[in-house]
Amino acid sequence: MRKIGVVGIGHVGATVAHIIIAQGLADELVLVDKNPDKVAADALDFRDAASLLSTHVSVHAGTTDDLTDADIVISALGHIDLIKPGGDRFTELKANTPEVQQVGADLKKAGFNGVLIVISNPVDVITGIYQKATGLPTNQVFGTGTYLDTARLKRVLGETLHVDPRSVQGYMLGEHGDSQFAAWSTVKIIGQDIQSLIAQHHLDLDKIANDARVGGFTVFNGKKYTNFAIAHAAVSLAQLVLSDARNEAIVSHYDDKFKSYISTPAIIGRAGVVQTFDLPLTPDEEIALQQSADAIVQKTADYL
Amino acid sequence: MRKIGVVGIGHVGATVAHIIIAQGLADELVLVDKNPDKVAADALDFRDAASLLSTHVSVHAGTTDDLTDADIVISALGHIDLIKPGGDRFTELKANTPEVQQVGADLKKAGFNGVLIVISNPVDVITGIYQKATGLPTNQVFGTGTYLDTARLKRVLGETLHVDPRSVQGYMLGEHGDSQFAAWSTVKIIGQDIQSLIAQHHLDLDKIANDARVGGFTVFNGKKYTNFAIAHAAVSLAQLVLSDARNEAIVSHYDDKFKSYISTPAIIGRAGVVQTFDLPLTPDEEIALQQSADAIVQKTADYL
Amino acid sequence: MRKIGVVGIGHVGATVAHIIIAQGLADELVLVDKNPDKVAADALDFRDAASLLSTHVSVHAGTTDDLTDADIVISALGHIDLIKPGGDRFTELKANTPEVQQVGADLKKAGFNGVLIVISNPVDVITGIYQKATGLPTNQVFGTGTYLDTARLKRVLGETLHVDPRSVQGYMLGEHGDSQFAAWSTVKIIGQDIQSLIAQHHLDLDKIANDARVGGFTVFNGKKYTNFAIAHAAVSLAQLVLSDARNEAIVSHYDDKFKSYISTPAIIGRAGVVQTFDLPLTPDEEIALQQSADAIVQKTADYL
Amino acid sequence: MRKIGVVGIGHVGATVAHIIIAQGLADELVLVDKNPDKVAADALDFRDAASLLSTHVSVHAGTTDDLTDADIVISALGHIDLIKPGGDRFTELKANTPEVQQVGADLKKAGFNGVLIVISNPVDVITGIYQKATGLPTNQVFGTGTYLDTARLKRVLGETLHVDPRSVQGYMLGEHGDSQFAAWSTVKIIGQDIQSLIAQHHLDLDKIANDARVGGFTVFNGKKYTNFAIAHAAVSLAQLVLSDARNEAIVSHYDDKFKSYISTPAIIGRAGVVQTFDLPLTPDEEIALQQSADAIVQKTADYL
Repeated sequence: MRKIGVVGIGHVGATVAHIIIAQGLADELVLVDKNPDKVAADALDFRDAASLLSTHVSVHAGTTDDLTDADIVISALGHIDLIKPGGDRFTELKANTPEVQQVGADLKKAGFNGVLIVISNPVDVITGIYQKATGLPTNQVFGTGTYLDTARLKRVLGETLHVDPRSVQGYMLGEHGDSQFAAWSTVKIIGQDIQSLIAQHHLDLDKIANDARVGGFTVFNGKKYTNFAIAHAAVSLAQLVLSDARNEAIVSHYDDKFKSYISTPAIIGRAGVVQTFDLPLTPDEEIALQQSADAIVQKTADYL
Repeated sequence: MRKIGVVGIGHVGATVAHIIIAQGLADELVLVDKNPDKVAADALDFRDAASLLSTHVSVHAGTTDDLTDADIVISALGHIDLIKPGGDRFTELKANTPEVQQVGADLKKAGFNGVLIVISNPVDVITGIYQKATGLPTNQVFGTGTYLDTARLKRVLGETLHVDPRSVQGYMLGEHGDSQFAAWSTVKIIGQDIQSLIAQHHLDLDKIANDARVGGFTVFNGKKYTNFAIAHAAVSLAQLVLSDARNEAIVSHYDDKFKSYISTPAIIGRAGVVQTFDLPLTPDEEIALQQSADAIVQKTADYL
Repeated sequence: MRKIGVVGIGHVGATVAHIIIAQGLADELVLVDKNPDKVAADALDFRDAASLLSTHVSVHAGTTDDLTDADIVISALGHIDLIKPGGDRFTELKANTPEVQQVGADLKKAGFNGVLIVISNPVDVITGIYQKATGLPTNQVFGTGTYLDTARLKRVLGETLHVDPRSVQGYMLGEHGDSQFAAWSTVKIIGQDIQSLIAQHHLDLDKIANDARVGGFTVFNGKKYTNFAIAHAAVSLAQLVLSDARNEAIVSHYDDKFKSYISTPAIIGRAGVVQTFDLPLTPDEEIALQQSADAIVQKTADYL
Repeated sequence: MRKIGVVGIGHVGATVAHIIIAQGLADELVLVDKNPDKVAADALDFRDAASLLSTHVSVHAGTTDDLTDADIVISALGHIDLIKPGGDRFTELKANTPEVQQVGADLKKAGFNGVLIVISNPVDVITGIYQKATGLPTNQVFGTGTYLDTARLKRVLGETLHVDPRSVQGYMLGEHGDSQFAAWSTVKIIGQDIQSLIAQHHLDLDKIANDARVGGFTVFNGKKYTNFAIAHAAVSLAQLVLSDARNEAIVSHYDDKFKSYISTPAIIGRAGVVQTFDLPLTPDEEIALQQSADAIVQKTADYL
């Protein structure tokens, strides 16, 4: 049986649950939230849809005690209401930290030994807190990180060059926050590297990278939350774990070099981050990555 | 090219759009809403997800002018904020009517000649207003009606008898509102009709029918809206239309006998409601259906 | 991890494997066949497709020793080449029996304790042989039986009445063979029972039932095997098992009354046939079912 | 309505049709074959499966006259029986040419103006014959070419490095035949280019490229045909066309430089090959591509 738990059933968590149900990705799905009315309402809404779907998922509200034998837990809890337009995801740190420590301790107590995928922000720091609180090996706890920002970079470049974003290769690296950066040396589109793309299409790289970086806030400003893309990011990672796909994906994983969780590509499989490797970068990109790691540390001190 | 428009991008409309995108059901999806910031934010959120999906859908905000060549338009506009706990969907009638008349007139002006699927409440009345405003043949305009209530009946009966709701046959008939009723003579589960089910399982039919009828409000009370089940209902109907499936489904369609839109089963295909038929009912059920039709007329007069 | 084994990689087994892979239904799929070149070729062909699919399945050739921890094993072995046009599936009995006894013993030796879904013909008898050879509880071993014939009945009725076959309710009961019969009292289409359908549409019931019964041979005569529908039947049953759907389906399951495997509807879940029930039938249908059970016994004696 | 025609219902054509039906990719699917019994049997087998599927596709046998309004036609006709183990796809040329000219002329006569996707071998030459016979613009006629060989390269590299083949970037270029080659400068896996992969993993490039090149024959030797991977390749291209995805894919398209159909990456959308571009290659790769183009011309003269 494939069993998934989602902790935090706000806009993001409910959308994560919805995708899992619509895809039939789990056989049992446990929704955990501190607001019993909201989570019961979502569980009922999902069960009302059951006769309309082509696969069967057993969905119910529950607690971390129900997650002992879960294959995957996805943390989507947060305080998006604390975020100001143009703000910083670290604004959520103080409010999220005690809740995350509690959920992590509860998962440990329940004996959860699967993979924990973290969406909660600031994701690089929160993922580290979860890893410590659960006591799980670092590979079993990772964050969505710049997987979403990378999807946004692909959207911006795809729209600029009028190709499907699935045809864009490349990464946003570092913090899932202001200090992230487009690693242009990793970008390739229809066989062209970034130099030849610039030459042919007069790309404004700074504008493109900024559109990707602030994409979340553009969405946020219009509807006060973001949910669809981040939820698809988390579920596609869950699918790689469940099927032991050993697929490359950019996630926030623990990097011994930086003594921190930060996003670079890794191989995702049944045990979570099953392999890491040194991504070849230009010297400037190496510096930018170090600076982003430093920014995570600095902001953690500032905001906590 | 399969082209769908969704009008009204609140919780329901956004979820409808999400399912269409996740399933790759349309090649082009136009989101229409009077709040330009919200709709632009949702469109961007969907496009941010594009590189994570296995199919390609072109998603953008637009107006009814973009819907001339749409195969299907789904109306999800409404004023859910007007509904009180335990209230009546007719509470939305006064606010929704002028908007629906405007959208209908705009679709007519744009030359839209596809199928219009109506979710907006009170759905039986609103669907009629849409049909008049668009000037489309009655078969091309139908409402989700008690398709959702029927799904809720299947949920309640499935949970009671511990079987998958997809294994429950039967219908909630009439108004998508208080006067609907479970047509017990149409219910069959694992080969047993309702009499033998009652005998074996001591079913409390009134409680079951009521749970189905008020299921929407149970969800509503917990989260102030319902979205997942209703959105799946609407999209599964859209799929029947797109593929010309000629599948039986219960929808709110125009019934000459009642001179009104009301829910009984019909055959759904490319032209919308492609066939209707007389559902065999018990005399009591015939009376209940007539009373429900009367209730729609009466409440229309009361609330408008 | 979801693990499935398919034993017998001819036309049917390969198509079963293909559907499982294309749907991402398993995480690991083991293909078992006595012809090592054919099974290696299919496994390689599937792996060549892996980069083109949206989900990841680990596919490899193997033996029953690899199936210890399989959730499901599907038996598709057979000797379709022995069948003559218009022939009887019992023609395969003599050739299939020793192979089935060997595979069953091998599965027992390997410690397989999942659900065994049998396609191999004559399915009602072969399923019984498998159950004895594996020593598994009867609920964990069932055959596709008249699930496929029922699908054919829905096809014939759907095409006759110009509705989607998914809108047809009803069953072909008994032997997956000549003695099966359409249980007309269970048929319902767009709310009408068979009497009212006859009255309205002048149905020739004998012709319809016969078209369903001989549908397999019509396909067989054109291409010397059948694969697509039977493979979808088996995989859709596997999906019900994997997700513990508790869905009603007609399968060949052990019936204490007849001391035989024979097809009537049952509830399918994680443990296989998780619930059976008395299907209300007319006296004539009861007799026909008994006769079909007798025919299975008689032909087993005749052909073995 | 999405309408697809498949011409040639052998192992490949039937599998193409199966994937289209299982995915619900078309609303109407026309199967065309010169053997009326085989095509009728497959159509019936597919319709027998209809009640078991979650989407509706109208499937029937037909002729090219039914393809006037098809969005896509896929040619899968061929004479695989002429191929010898370790042989050359050009062995089919003489037998396939008159049939292809006839089908092309018939499509022209029918007024077909959609996209023609060619699987029939030798695909680079046959695609050119189709383009001339149909009179369609070159962009509307393309072949699967080395899309499949590229998938095989990804399989070999993925298995060698123990990563999902979807995480392998790179191309097999040129003829879908002996003269094709791995363009190592285009290969990238988990951020590493081929030089760093060689250094780390001691790759034997010649062996890898050869495994990809002869992969089809390895499958062929085991089962006398290949079907699953090639069918998924063709259908995934059809999906890009239907949804106007503008996705990069390697297909056999007309290249003015070589005055021939040959495989290099292109952008695929609603009009077929909607954009081509110069792929940056090393001088050696440029030579190899020219030699492959020459080989196509030479073998066409030799075999015809």
